[in-house]
Amino acid sequence: MSERIIVTYQVAAAPAEIAARAEALAIEQSVECPLAAVTEQQIRDEIVGRVEAIAPIGETRFSVRVSLASATAPAEPGQLLNMLFGNSSIQPDVTLADVELPPAYPAAFGGPKLGISGLRAKLGAPRRALTGSALKPQGLAPEALAGLAHRLALGGVDLIKDDHGIADQAFSPFAARVPAVARAMREACAVRGAAMLYAPHVSGSLDDMRRQLDIVRREGLSVVMLMPMIVGLANFHLIAKEAEGLIVLAHPSLAGAQRIAPDLLLGKLFRLLGADATIFPHYGGRFAYTPETCRALADAARRDWHDLKPCLPVPAGGIAIDRIKELLAFYGTDVMLLIGGSLLAAGEQLTEHAARFTAEVASHGQ
Amino acid sequence: MSERIIVTYQVAAAPAEIAARAEALAIEQSVECPLAAVTEQQIRDEIVGRVEAIAPIGETRFSVRVSLASATAPAEPGQLLNMLFGNSSIQPDVTLADVELPPAYPAAFGGPKLGISGLRAKLGAPRRALTGSALKPQGLAPEALAGLAHRLALGGVDLIKDDHGIADQAFSPFAARVPAVARAMREACAVRGAAMLYAPHVSGSLDDMRRQLDIVRREGLSVVMLMPMIVGLANFHLIAKEAEGLIVLAHPSLAGAQRIAPDLLLGKLFRLLGADATIFPHYGGRFAYTPETCRALADAARRDWHDLKPCLPVPAGGIAIDRIKELLAFYGTDVMLLIGGSLLAAGEQLTEHAARFTAEVASHGQ
Repeated sequence: MSERIIVTYQVAAAPAEIAARAEALAIEQSVECPLAAVTEQQIRDEIVGRVEAIAPIGETRFSVRVSLASATAPAEPGQLLNMLFGNSSIQPDVTLADVELPPAYPAAFGGPKLGISGLRAKLGAPRRALTGSALKPQGLAPEALAGLAHRLALGGVDLIKDDHGIADQAFSPFAARVPAVARAMREACAVRGAAMLYAPHVSGSLDDMRRQLDIVRREGLSVVMLMPMIVGLANFHLIAKEAEGLIVLAHPSLAGAQRIAPDLLLGKLFRLLGADATIFPHYGGRFAYTPETCRALADAARRDWHDLKPCLPVPAGGIAIDRIKELLAFYGTDVMLLIGGSLLAAGEQLTEHAARFTAEVASHGQ
Repeated sequence: MSERIIVTYQVAAAPAEIAARAEALAIEQSVECPLAAVTEQQIRDEIVGRVEAIAPIGETRFSVRVSLASATAPAEPGQLLNMLFGNSSIQPDVTLADVELPPAYPAAFGGPKLGISGLRAKLGAPRRALTGSALKPQGLAPEALAGLAHRLALGGVDLIKDDHGIADQAFSPFAARVPAVARAMREACAVRGAAMLYAPHVSGSLDDMRRQLDIVRREGLSVVMLMPMIVGLANFHLIAKEAEGLIVLAHPSLAGAQRIAPDLLLGKLFRLLGADATIFPHYGGRFAYTPETCRALADAARRDWHDLKPCLPVPAGGIAIDRIKELLAFYGTDVMLLIGGSLLAAGEQLTEHAARFTAEVASHGQ
């Protein structure tokens, strides 16, 4: 990998200072020392980060393009992130906005194994938008969660995931919960004669996740959900690789640091490392993403990029049934709408509300 | 673990809205759904987060104390962070400021194995402040890095670490670099008749790190450096546990998201999970930490906290030799001053500058 990585930062600085600030940033994210300490000419020429362009985006805000030597960041996800935004994450005037990678990276990382079309194939839903829901609250025992899954699935929800707060707690151990929910889902699928999927939340150290993945395989499940920023990008990538044949769903927990652009992190990078689908908060719910952020994120997940399969955008976060039309108009049909809490609040009418949700999504654009 | 975790957030809100905002935050970081969806009384009583106190810290800024059920966060580092700041990291009005844990957590996580006294024992330096430096720039071959280590060690630097940008690159593979630097260090130690330590940067997936740890052990080294926020907290903790007898140094790469207080993340939590020493940017260098942030971070690393050993503060980030007196006056002697770039810029006088650095530190307070 001899080509250069092009990184775009947004930097706050006075116009008179931006050139020096950009230069310092290029050094921080490459050799990280005074140039006086760099005596080898080859390192000065090739390894030191280079400022390629500076463009104003406001009176005291600039877009700065820096090129980094790909030799400094082998195709190891943690080291790539380290080189893109390791130390400069501690400098509050900098935001990591975008990255263009030489083709060797997408080839090495591989991206989604199944992607949108793979998920559609598993669900037998080639065109319509998809539906998802979440099992919560935490504190429920496995059988209670299984009961919720069963009732949601009877309403035809395509994918039912563990809430990201549900991990491997004493009140609902992974080894007990996953088989219980899987059984409930099989029964509901048999009743409806349709494929519906359950995504357990796989978490902990790489060792923990591999033990959990064994259970997922034993239950014949097709999907897992992980939190890449908490389990570590390298471990996320490794699990995504090892989860051969499984759909990998990425959850944005802890990904909210405001200084990595969400479309880059949740859209582009998670996809690069193997996310078949990426969950993110849709605007207008409990989170602060703007419509522009959501649009950019969905675009980054789905658009043509090297040979990587498209990744499914999964807007979530306080969506209610009455927003379905609005969301499908916004995202089109290559999307999964994830409605958790507002469905569960339906109580005894859970299956009916789930059925209304899935019917509305299915009828859109017919 | 039946007691509650007390989490302190700083929240931006208008006075008329803070009560509702705090309540929403307590729900977000616990059951994460409308209370109408929480039908079991026991979950409402015990699992739902509770707002314990709200205190103003500015006109539109409040300190909010929320208690969470420890049942929701077993002693697994990733899940703990997930419960403390998973989804709310995506809400820009919230900062994670502090956490008080029931005693079962420190007991389960264990904290530093060796801590400050263990590091002092390895160096035969029971009282004085310690000195550190870094091998850089990246791009150098193993023998060149080994040469720098040798010349720094001849100047008496206690601990020499890989730059955090040096990982397992083709120009300096871990398996070639670590033995080369270790040999150079052994030779310098023999010349000086003193113990000096080399800390290789261990990175990648948990599998990668274990392979690297084998090399570290084979070379008889005493220290490793890791980036907890990049390798994942659970994997950091696991490696810290498996690195039996080794000093574990934590590096702040990617830890700079402004919305987790640095004293909490780099001081308290890294220590909790096994950091014997924690590197952070000292104020006045290339980073934006204030004196108050640095003081709070050093305090969090060193103060009495349950039965955990103290963790050594390692201020770094653009420190020059002429600031030694200032830094030692600020931190006292339970500290390691890390001077990298400004020493390396000395070129041919590297050993002399290193000797001046170590002599100045040794003479302080004599």
